[in-house]
Amino acid sequence: MERYFDYAATCPVDEDALEAYIHATRNYSANTKSLHDSGTKAHALLEQCRNTIAGLMGVEQEGVYFTSGGTESNEIAIHALLKAGRGKHIITTDAEHSSVRNFIQKYEGEGYKVTRVPLNEAGSVNLKDVERAVQEDTVLMAIQHVNSDIGTVQPIRELSDVCRSYGILFHSDCVQSFGKVTMEEVAPYVDSLSVSAHKLYGPKGVGAVYIRPTLSFAPKIPGGTHEGGVRAGTVNTPGIAGFTVAAEKMVRERHRIESKILELKETFLRTGEWKVVGDTADHAVPIIGLILPEMEGQFAMLEGNRRDFHFSTGSACHAGSQEPPGTLIAMGYDVEEAKSFIRLSLSHHQKNEQIKELALFLKGLCKPTVSR
Amino acid sequence: MERYFDYAATCPVDEDALEAYIHATRNYSANTKSLHDSGTKAHALLEQCRNTIAGLMGVEQEGVYFTSGGTESNEIAIHALLKAGRGKHIITTDAEHSSVRNFIQKYEGEGYKVTRVPLNEAGSVNLKDVERAVQEDTVLMAIQHVNSDIGTVQPIRELSDVCRSYGILFHSDCVQSFGKVTMEEVAPYVDSLSVSAHKLYGPKGVGAVYIRPTLSFAPKIPGGTHEGGVRAGTVNTPGIAGFTVAAEKMVRERHRIESKILELKETFLRTGEWKVVGDTADHAVPIIGLILPEMEGQFAMLEGNRRDFHFSTGSACHAGSQEPPGTLIAMGYDVEEAKSFIRLSLSHHQKNEQIKELALFLKGLCKPTVSR
Repeated sequence: MERYFDYAATCPVDEDALEAYIHATRNYSANTKSLHDSGTKAHALLEQCRNTIAGLMGVEQEGVYFTSGGTESNEIAIHALLKAGRGKHIITTDAEHSSVRNFIQKYEGEGYKVTRVPLNEAGSVNLKDVERAVQEDTVLMAIQHVNSDIGTVQPIRELSDVCRSYGILFHSDCVQSFGKVTMEEVAPYVDSLSVSAHKLYGPKGVGAVYIRPTLSFAPKIPGGTHEGGVRAGTVNTPGIAGFTVAAEKMVRERHRIESKILELKETFLRTGEWKVVGDTADHAVPIIGLILPEMEGQFAMLEGNRRDFHFSTGSACHAGSQEPPGTLIAMGYDVEEAKSFIRLSLSHHQKNEQIKELALFLKGLCKPTVSR
Repeated sequence: MERYFDYAATCPVDEDALEAYIHATRNYSANTKSLHDSGTKAHALLEQCRNTIAGLMGVEQEGVYFTSGGTESNEIAIHALLKAGRGKHIITTDAEHSSVRNFIQKYEGEGYKVTRVPLNEAGSVNLKDVERAVQEDTVLMAIQHVNSDIGTVQPIRELSDVCRSYGILFHSDCVQSFGKVTMEEVAPYVDSLSVSAHKLYGPKGVGAVYIRPTLSFAPKIPGGTHEGGVRAGTVNTPGIAGFTVAAEKMVRERHRIESKILELKETFLRTGEWKVVGDTADHAVPIIGLILPEMEGQFAMLEGNRRDFHFSTGSACHAGSQEPPGTLIAMGYDVEEAKSFIRLSLSHHQKNEQIKELALFLKGLCKPTVSR
């Protein structure tokens, strides 16, 4: 994975997290709902993980439900908030992860009205645009914490103020932020948030959703017994144990990780004149979005791949699509320019040398007549 | 796990399956949708697993979608069939797993009519009841292959004949059968079926759904890219690799496993006069449902637990509920008698001695004045 720069698509699993997964697989294998001691033991581990994850997110344990990942978390949260609130209007952005965009599109097809506020040049929503989008029957605002294409951080606290003054419920997709930047400016200000294990070096197929426990909502499917009736299906205790260990490590070492990421980003950026999308240089989010000069991102990605540099042209959940990332469309880029986009996403395990190599490769690629 | 008799709730993970999980975690960690070589490598493993699983189920590879487990598989299949077919009437039973029952209840709340056919004394549906339940606008039949409470096998082929003559789509929950009994009498005869990894010694949080590829249906959520648009969210490649190895082992060794299970069941049954629920003695399904004489199942379960015998009073997804298992209600048991129900579910890894110990314990418990 030496030349892997696609950590926002997915991370390799931390060895301690894998160890926790293996240990729980061998020793806590019973169904958490079984009432005998094998089940009780697995259930106790599950609740311990819930307690830890809640603490790391900065939310109440009773509001945390484990899921199969970020996508399912977003689905559960958006459904819950739409059921809990009143009204048929949703405010969101085109820059959301495809899972959020797709769910909202589904509800749009079912009669909800949707306003998609744009992103400014900095890659952030303007509060004025958001406030202007509010309608009498706005029930939900779904705006991410950290953008998955360019890594910008949205002003959650200020958005929350808007929501609170108009009685709007607020969901924030925190899949790209949890474990990477602080949640202090998020958790207390939203009604729901979603996180995923594999984006922070935990196992795939595991995530969590937080829904404010004071909120009264009907679950998607009636009659469930697991996860407080909010998410049915046998609980993946080993995956949750791995997730918990991975998240603990990331949050515990956040300051060290943040300075490492800042160092890597600085190393990259000072190698040349890059057209970075959004104001992200001084953030510790490990994502750099770039517009390449007169070159399709797709081409750069494939050329990179030939030299073993693995990066992407946007979210992996969007890969294969002919459309450019929604983030760039939300920012007003025209489709042609947006095709020159590439995403580099980094890891604190990387060395400055590695990112320098990538920068030199990209520089050479973009100025072929000079460098060859 | 020596005195664990709750394998229908969940199985410990096979060590080879765990090994495959670990290997894939370390070596195939990229997102299967990433277009660089790391992604392509993970994607190739995923497709290899899909091919193997399809072969083991006896279905076309193009119809297999990996999910987070049996519950999600049932949800996707039922939704797909309802969207693909025409009509507002569903035929099912009260003996289905709670996930199927809950989804159908949800659709009932949304305007579908539902006929729940009973089970006879043998624990099976009567074809005449099923045929009588058919209405002009019957769109879906959802009847399980193997029952999770008592282990009876439903006549899938004959049910399929009914479905085909009336143009009804047929979903069968095969979570308790895949890897344990042959699917030859199921796969060619249904429009969709669901399976789960952790019920056959694979990892938790993984399952698959088969939907006949010739069926034209709209996915639950639009715009997904993973799993042919049918199931969104980053694919859990390591979990799927573990699932595949576990399923391969079970299917490959099916004959040996079946005779071992039959031996265990016979060993148990010949220790005394048991009131077995349903005709299951000569089936290799590793489940025995019992009605205890004048004793609550809950009490027996707790007493068992004190002696380290871990069994259940029905499906774990139903545990904690005050109601008796739906299967017994579907069979016409009155609520009081159904409270005396316990479920013993076995493993081919168990020894005759272990099951004999359990039988002796239960005998002693049920005749306290004689045995003490």
